[in-house]
Amino acid sequence: MKQIIDDFKTAFKNCTYSAVHHKKLRLKQQLQQLADALGEDEISEVYGYGNLIEDFENEVAELLGKEAAVFLPSGTMAQPVALKVWSEAARSPYVGYHPTSHLQLHEQNGVQALWGLTPISLGSPLHVPTLNDIKHAANNRLAAILLELPMREIGGQLPSWDDLVAQSEWMKANDIKRHLDGARLWQCPAAYNTSLAEIAALFDSVYVSFYKDLGGIAGACLLGDRAFIDQAKIWIRRAGGNLYSLAPYVVAARQGLKTHLPSMTDRRTQAIWLAEQLNAIDAFQTWPSVPQTNMFRLRVNKRAEDVLPKISQWMQDNDCAIIGLPYEQGETHFSCELTVGDAFDQLTLEQWQHKLTSFKCIFSE
Amino acid sequence: MKQIIDDFKTAFKNCTYSAVHHKKLRLKQQLQQLADALGEDEISEVYGYGNLIEDFENEVAELLGKEAAVFLPSGTMAQPVALKVWSEAARSPYVGYHPTSHLQLHEQNGVQALWGLTPISLGSPLHVPTLNDIKHAANNRLAAILLELPMREIGGQLPSWDDLVAQSEWMKANDIKRHLDGARLWQCPAAYNTSLAEIAALFDSVYVSFYKDLGGIAGACLLGDRAFIDQAKIWIRRAGGNLYSLAPYVVAARQGLKTHLPSMTDRRTQAIWLAEQLNAIDAFQTWPSVPQTNMFRLRVNKRAEDVLPKISQWMQDNDCAIIGLPYEQGETHFSCELTVGDAFDQLTLEQWQHKLTSFKCIFSE
Repeated sequence: MKQIIDDFKTAFKNCTYSAVHHKKLRLKQQLQQLADALGEDEISEVYGYGNLIEDFENEVAELLGKEAAVFLPSGTMAQPVALKVWSEAARSPYVGYHPTSHLQLHEQNGVQALWGLTPISLGSPLHVPTLNDIKHAANNRLAAILLELPMREIGGQLPSWDDLVAQSEWMKANDIKRHLDGARLWQCPAAYNTSLAEIAALFDSVYVSFYKDLGGIAGACLLGDRAFIDQAKIWIRRAGGNLYSLAPYVVAARQGLKTHLPSMTDRRTQAIWLAEQLNAIDAFQTWPSVPQTNMFRLRVNKRAEDVLPKISQWMQDNDCAIIGLPYEQGETHFSCELTVGDAFDQLTLEQWQHKLTSFKCIFSE
Repeated sequence: MKQIIDDFKTAFKNCTYSAVHHKKLRLKQQLQQLADALGEDEISEVYGYGNLIEDFENEVAELLGKEAAVFLPSGTMAQPVALKVWSEAARSPYVGYHPTSHLQLHEQNGVQALWGLTPISLGSPLHVPTLNDIKHAANNRLAAILLELPMREIGGQLPSWDDLVAQSEWMKANDIKRHLDGARLWQCPAAYNTSLAEIAALFDSVYVSFYKDLGGIAGACLLGDRAFIDQAKIWIRRAGGNLYSLAPYVVAARQGLKTHLPSMTDRRTQAIWLAEQLNAIDAFQTWPSVPQTNMFRLRVNKRAEDVLPKISQWMQDNDCAIIGLPYEQGETHFSCELTVGDAFDQLTLEQWQHKLTSFKCIFSE
């Protein structure tokens, strides 16, 4: 199976065309583009002080309607920092989040082992949390609740706008700080038909990421009011995230915001179209059946061992990728995550239609 | 006084020539150079996996004679990680370091507030720790001791080689892990007339930095045996330092190692020469009187308010900087830190002599 996966990776990497992700750039080109994007007189900040980073922080703060922002290396640092600040303020170690949260699945339990917080599980793994879930978790003395929008591990699902507003109001009324895991928040305005600031207004603190939807190198912002950001900066320093220079990440994030943010509505439309095409294949089922954002999960009801080599061959023959690497497999199925990025624009819908018709043949045998 | 300092900063920044630091590059040029230094086929790592970062980690590990290395964003993250790993292994929260350690002075007490460790003060603030200091601190149940080489806050001083060897052997015999704060370790081989690996061999774990002596953007390596690095990676992930891509920092570090490491012996010779010249000025006193490395502190026995405006004017008139910004002032003196970098190579010794003769006139009035 390892060989099958490796072959799939190689075939995927070599494709010129891809229905998922952003167009790939060589690192050399990427750094070249950053150099080109810089003004002659722009200089790096020093430990967070300097126009380049501060202007960008202000730009992001304004975009999200928050008083202040701090740029830092990662979301894995940003979110425990936010929860820690709220925990200290509330004198409570309890913080609530969904069982599929990044903090639960991908951070080596740092929130407990390093940050000294006690997570309270919120809602059930396959579903968006409800107000009842929040009330139930709040039976603990919660300092804060983290909500992720959209919810990556469950196919980019979102609560309805009215539910989200009701949850936010209930938490505020019950003195629970509201933290937004906005790793892919950029996808939400198109889904809710609202602005980024209207969504962020439902939260006391917000994390956004620059290298996923926006194609940056790495890096994140944490946002909130001035007092929150002042506290956050102390914890970021303690965690080793106050770097001598974050300039390459800042410049890439700034470019990403310009390049990719305006296309998020198109990406969502493309994702919905792509999901519809894929659902027309018998063995395929998207989750959700109609994507809410430009990401969704795809379940393929075939054995990975049987189908992946055929897909690899197809990718090689057609110089084109439709689906990414499986992230989960069972005995008779496997699943993958699809996020539509600017690579989709390389072909017209008619051309994609043509590719998909050919792709379907793999599964009709 | 603020205006005086600001004027000094501006004059310093505008100088073409400088006896201290590396030559300044615009950010645009710096990123351009990184792009130029990259091969067409080099691609960024993903979350620490990939040839670019792994090859560089191996290169640094080999240079320092350690089994393994991990590249991470900062020393402020690297060192508590190292101490935490040793603390967990020893089941003791106690770690020893000097009162001028970076952990004590510049990290918002993260080692206690975030990492849950209990520092034990080692030695006296103005001196290099002795074996007796180490034995005294070891009356606590120490998991590890951190030694900094050279010691930045006391003018780049070093213990003698024999003392260092004796300290290392005693700690090993007493089951105390030996961590090297090597933020500026690159300066030491010239001082000890040994290799980097011979110095690193006296320690169980080593941190080195790439943006100080080596002119990188930011970033550090932590080194040790494979088991130590495996543990360290878990804590780095928990702290948010396992980034999607550290590639720009890795490329800059790789270039820095090539460009600056071979000149460290010259830099030390230049620093000794410069200190001798400065000590010839009545009001000046370097600490140590003969530098052990390419950094030293300079005490100016004049009121900063009186002298700094004259220095600023001199810098403007001569397009040249000799000393950097004061980091400490008393009523009748101020002090600054001088680190000789590649900017010193812009002029010959004769030319520097000429500049210094003119510079001295400020203080003879």
